[in-house]
Amino acid sequence: MTPVQLRPDERIDMLYRDEVQIIQSQQVFSFSLDAVLLAHFANLRNGGRGTLVDLGTGNGAIPLFMAHKVTGQIIGVEIQARLADMAQRSVAMNELTEKIEIINSDMRDVFDYLKPGSVENVVSNPPYFEATEKSHKNPNQYYAIARHEIKADLNLVTYTAKKLLKSGGHFFMVHRPDRLFEILDALRANNLIPKRIQFVYPKVGREANVVLIEAIKNGRLTGAQILPPIITHNEDDTYRDEVWDIYEGRA
Amino acid sequence: MTPVQLRPDERIDMLYRDEVQIIQSQQVFSFSLDAVLLAHFANLRNGGRGTLVDLGTGNGAIPLFMAHKVTGQIIGVEIQARLADMAQRSVAMNELTEKIEIINSDMRDVFDYLKPGSVENVVSNPPYFEATEKSHKNPNQYYAIARHEIKADLNLVTYTAKKLLKSGGHFFMVHRPDRLFEILDALRANNLIPKRIQFVYPKVGREANVVLIEAIKNGRLTGAQILPPIITHNEDDTYRDEVWDIYEGRA
Repeated sequence: MTPVQLRPDERIDMLYRDEVQIIQSQQVFSFSLDAVLLAHFANLRNGGRGTLVDLGTGNGAIPLFMAHKVTGQIIGVEIQARLADMAQRSVAMNELTEKIEIINSDMRDVFDYLKPGSVENVVSNPPYFEATEKSHKNPNQYYAIARHEIKADLNLVTYTAKKLLKSGGHFFMVHRPDRLFEILDALRANNLIPKRIQFVYPKVGREANVVLIEAIKNGRLTGAQILPPIITHNEDDTYRDEVWDIYEGRA
Repeated sequence: MTPVQLRPDERIDMLYRDEVQIIQSQQVFSFSLDAVLLAHFANLRNGGRGTLVDLGTGNGAIPLFMAHKVTGQIIGVEIQARLADMAQRSVAMNELTEKIEIINSDMRDVFDYLKPGSVENVVSNPPYFEATEKSHKNPNQYYAIARHEIKADLNLVTYTAKKLLKSGGHFFMVHRPDRLFEILDALRANNLIPKRIQFVYPKVGREANVVLIEAIKNGRLTGAQILPPIITHNEDDTYRDEVWDIYEGRA
């Protein structure tokens, strides 16, 4: 690891038996279990060759968690300068500057950096909540932008993924199941055909609260796979073993 | 129970602690676990008032399993005369002729008996497999028609359900997850908006092999619920307790 400068509100968290270190801040952004699940779910072909883009990378959690799966290049796009800076310093700390590039940009402008149809894989943990007048937004603007569709909504994320991907390229997204049909509509409208879906349930006997989706650009409509359920917590709110395995195992 | 005449190939099976008896025949039709799961999944409003239609009722398993949930009328539609006859005799045996009517008809002709827009609930366990030239159809024609889309396909079933239902009426279907996106397309094309989905997995760690869907005619697109997973079998191929509870408990 290479030492980096931390701001007063920042701390360093570790993952994968401390092999990955990441700068976090309760004041501006901390990655969630969803990012860990998405990095685990994203099953890259061809040993992760070519370019992988993370749309809305936040503090760079997904690029850092996926670096060991990728032989090619990872590009994380983040609109918030403060978060892009945290991500950049985490990349440097993990000595991954040759593999991971963080771009501080609106995802609308990603084609200033990347050619349409040039990318093998796109991943995204986008804002989950609609940004309606009525929706309860976080008064902290960093979190509000990360969680609500203020700067990027489902249609923009899926459209950008479609435009970045080669035909046959893969898009991996984590989202909320209560928006499943909007998600499927947005994917379909962009010719991203769902191939593998996995539902994540908070506890035994509870409804799913997270959905992981893999879609293929210009893929076939039939043969969807619904992967085994993931149940994240025990009754006493501790993580179940399968979650610890993902956290610790680079599973 | 009222005694009925059995053919040589027929036997009587029992469900719900022997409270329901049903005529089965390995030569022409036996209900599957899927019918039991659908009858359990179908969560009828208003105490099951009004009319419930089962499209493709086979030997009448679903009407018999749901009779205790319905205060109104149940109509089972079955195109195969031999199966409709089995269903009719099971209804008589269970002394349910006042509640359950079996119609031996192509579902295309169901509107000879029922007015469009007159039905509260529709259920269906339709044929799962496409009837293409290449598809491996069962040489037994009874099973072939029950399992392959020879007489009725997804579009006909969903269209018929839509046309039968009142606005706001509920459609409950069991099908295969590898056809999930075709199912969602067919539902959407008929303004049947999925509301609750439950995936059924054969064993721990395996992909889902059954999907249960509840859709509402002219319902809202947001707020889909993914119910807790059902896992049907133990590693030794015996049923898990949750399946026995459904079989025995009128759960």
